[in-house]
Amino acid sequence: MAVADGGFRALDEKSLIEYIRATPALSSLLGDDLRALTVKEVGDGNLNFVYIVISSSGGSIVIKQAIPYIRCIGESWPMTKERAYFEALTLREHGRLCPAHVPEVYHFDRPLSLIAMRYLKPPHIILRKGLIAGIEYPLLAEHMSEYMARTLFFTSLLYRSTSEHKREVAEYCGNVELCRLTEQVVFSDPYKISQYNHWTSPYLDQDAETVREDDILKLEVAGLKSMFCERAQALIHGDLHTGSVMVTTDSTQVIDPEFAFYGPMGFDIGALVGNLILAFFSQDGHSDNGKDRKVYKQWILKTIEDTWNLFHKKFISLWNEHKDGNGEAYLADVYKKPELWFLVQEKYIKDLFHDSLGFGAAKMIRRIVGVAHVEDFESITDAERRAYCEHRALEFAKMILKERQRYDTIEQITSALQNIPS
Amino acid sequence: MAVADGGFRALDEKSLIEYIRATPALSSLLGDDLRALTVKEVGDGNLNFVYIVISSSGGSIVIKQAIPYIRCIGESWPMTKERAYFEALTLREHGRLCPAHVPEVYHFDRPLSLIAMRYLKPPHIILRKGLIAGIEYPLLAEHMSEYMARTLFFTSLLYRSTSEHKREVAEYCGNVELCRLTEQVVFSDPYKISQYNHWTSPYLDQDAETVREDDILKLEVAGLKSMFCERAQALIHGDLHTGSVMVTTDSTQVIDPEFAFYGPMGFDIGALVGNLILAFFSQDGHSDNGKDRKVYKQWILKTIEDTWNLFHKKFISLWNEHKDGNGEAYLADVYKKPELWFLVQEKYIKDLFHDSLGFGAAKMIRRIVGVAHVEDFESITDAERRAYCEHRALEFAKMILKERQRYDTIEQITSALQNIPS
Repeated sequence: MAVADGGFRALDEKSLIEYIRATPALSSLLGDDLRALTVKEVGDGNLNFVYIVISSSGGSIVIKQAIPYIRCIGESWPMTKERAYFEALTLREHGRLCPAHVPEVYHFDRPLSLIAMRYLKPPHIILRKGLIAGIEYPLLAEHMSEYMARTLFFTSLLYRSTSEHKREVAEYCGNVELCRLTEQVVFSDPYKISQYNHWTSPYLDQDAETVREDDILKLEVAGLKSMFCERAQALIHGDLHTGSVMVTTDSTQVIDPEFAFYGPMGFDIGALVGNLILAFFSQDGHSDNGKDRKVYKQWILKTIEDTWNLFHKKFISLWNEHKDGNGEAYLADVYKKPELWFLVQEKYIKDLFHDSLGFGAAKMIRRIVGVAHVEDFESITDAERRAYCEHRALEFAKMILKERQRYDTIEQITSALQNIPS
Repeated sequence: MAVADGGFRALDEKSLIEYIRATPALSSLLGDDLRALTVKEVGDGNLNFVYIVISSSGGSIVIKQAIPYIRCIGESWPMTKERAYFEALTLREHGRLCPAHVPEVYHFDRPLSLIAMRYLKPPHIILRKGLIAGIEYPLLAEHMSEYMARTLFFTSLLYRSTSEHKREVAEYCGNVELCRLTEQVVFSDPYKISQYNHWTSPYLDQDAETVREDDILKLEVAGLKSMFCERAQALIHGDLHTGSVMVTTDSTQVIDPEFAFYGPMGFDIGALVGNLILAFFSQDGHSDNGKDRKVYKQWILKTIEDTWNLFHKKFISLWNEHKDGNGEAYLADVYKKPELWFLVQEKYIKDLFHDSLGFGAAKMIRRIVGVAHVEDFESITDAERRAYCEHRALEFAKMILKERQRYDTIEQITSALQNIPS
């Protein structure tokens, strides 16, 4: 067990059990007999250690510990373990706003950067793995649109006063290292030579170079990066890809908000939609095990449409419901005329749609030519076939990033996806 | 002398002298003989008390004290005296970045919300008064463009790292009450019925109503308000009108940054340009004392052009000079190709130009139909004549706010001003 700064020590399975025994808030959740605890490390993300702890009496918890570097890279890339503080804070805040889709936090230990939270039992799996397996989740769009509408609306100036907003913005400025990481891996590295970038070589060598040489693309990315750094629109999850969602056919749970901060709403919506589009493009790499993916691709497109359209509807409903509340952005006294109220909302949503498309496209690009790739593609073992899927996804993302202002509806996007020639 | 919270007491001339005698940092500036101090209260702004203190030996200082309400309205509109903290902080930061145009801070007493700073001796006068008097300031555009280019560039992500930026943003989130005041008086009250609004009645009754009923105008104002609340682009002065600048023919000093926070750069540039345009429109109300104002109006237009064009030039120079620095917004490695570097800068400046026009227009409108008016117009005693000037300014501001995207150069703006029919 490593001993580090300010009382921090990285736990292993043995010391974790000792910690649980010594912590009543946890031991009480696991029942009387703590001798027979099963501990399993399951962290498959890029950053942290995650343990499932199950007691013989049937109690269960998940323990997540942040370590002071990026797990998938190693100690050579230090990363503040304070990210766990912002993760716990956000799980609690988003959980308060949308308890149906955020796991409960039982306990947070700041010196240890340790969060204990509800164990999402089987058959919960990571959404990305479900998408690779070709499983349909009929409630996914409904649930994710609910989560995004509630967490984004209630933490924006549409609902909050300026005073509450600035207090929260100030607090989350502390999560700067994670913001910097996003800036680097999403908005910078893919557009320059970087030791961390990789791609399916040699097939995509030319594609990667083309991204680095595309002036118009890089001009658009600059605008998105500025928005990411400067615009405190709402408390966003900050990493809302399909690996941050756990699902069953009737449950959807958003996890891992350690990148949370006050940023542009479109960054969350775009992350989800962009990753669904990656899943769409990856299907051609998964269609050969005797299972045709044509129907599944249609389900993905329908889910993309429903996610945006339901988000739009729910977000506007919340706004209408709270139009006489504390929110200071659009005072009812100024915008009370129904036609104007409609006009204001329409403009807000249109801008948000374009932001979401831009961020979504940027998130797609970085998953193909940047440091961290997605299992949707990585699990396609035939490199040439993988490169074919990735190339098509990359071309689509570049087009959307550059021409997103031309699109007004999500159906225009799914229709464009539908009509890409093989 | 009122006794208030946390050691605060509002000083008067007598207690101010006692304070100076007891404070070596101040008494040492005023020389040995503190018996013969002359104290004169000169605060003509809306918020604070300002004293000029002169000693018989020739030493001098200015003392500014914030009180916990808005001076021009009274105790019925409370306003945190902590604004003095942000004013002192900003005077020091902007002073460090542009010492030639920011008065030196000698001493700050946080419990008393008291700032002691350099006395800007006669013939320094408030720029607005000089503009009303028809005085030309040949170095004004040069100096103000220098001040804006340096303070805005060096506090933006073009120069700073994300870490420095977020730390500063968090600190200035504390100046929330002043931000809220701006939101209310600039972006909300003029567009609704408010007890604080007033205008030159009855002449402008219809104009005020038209502003409140102009849907497109209010849609544009909503976008600007969101940008003001959400976008932490640089440490802006926050109230950079012509009453916040003291001038002689060869000195230009920016004072009163108590509204400072991390906001959109265009809010500062727009405040200055918008107030110069108000000065332009007010000249027809000042042209009868045997002095023709035609030439002076041309000087104002030339100053507006030079201010923007010199700002543009200086800002780009600073950016080029520091392109390999800590700034994380546009990494040299990504944007190194000269044509792309040019493209990126061109887009940045074009967006900033449109932001500045939008904010400038909003600041003009609020000075005609909102709570706080400008002496440029208020000093025109003939109400009908004043209303004529105000009406023309208001029409111009509304047009710019709605159609600013159509303008690419400042000369197109001054030409539009030139061509307004009498």
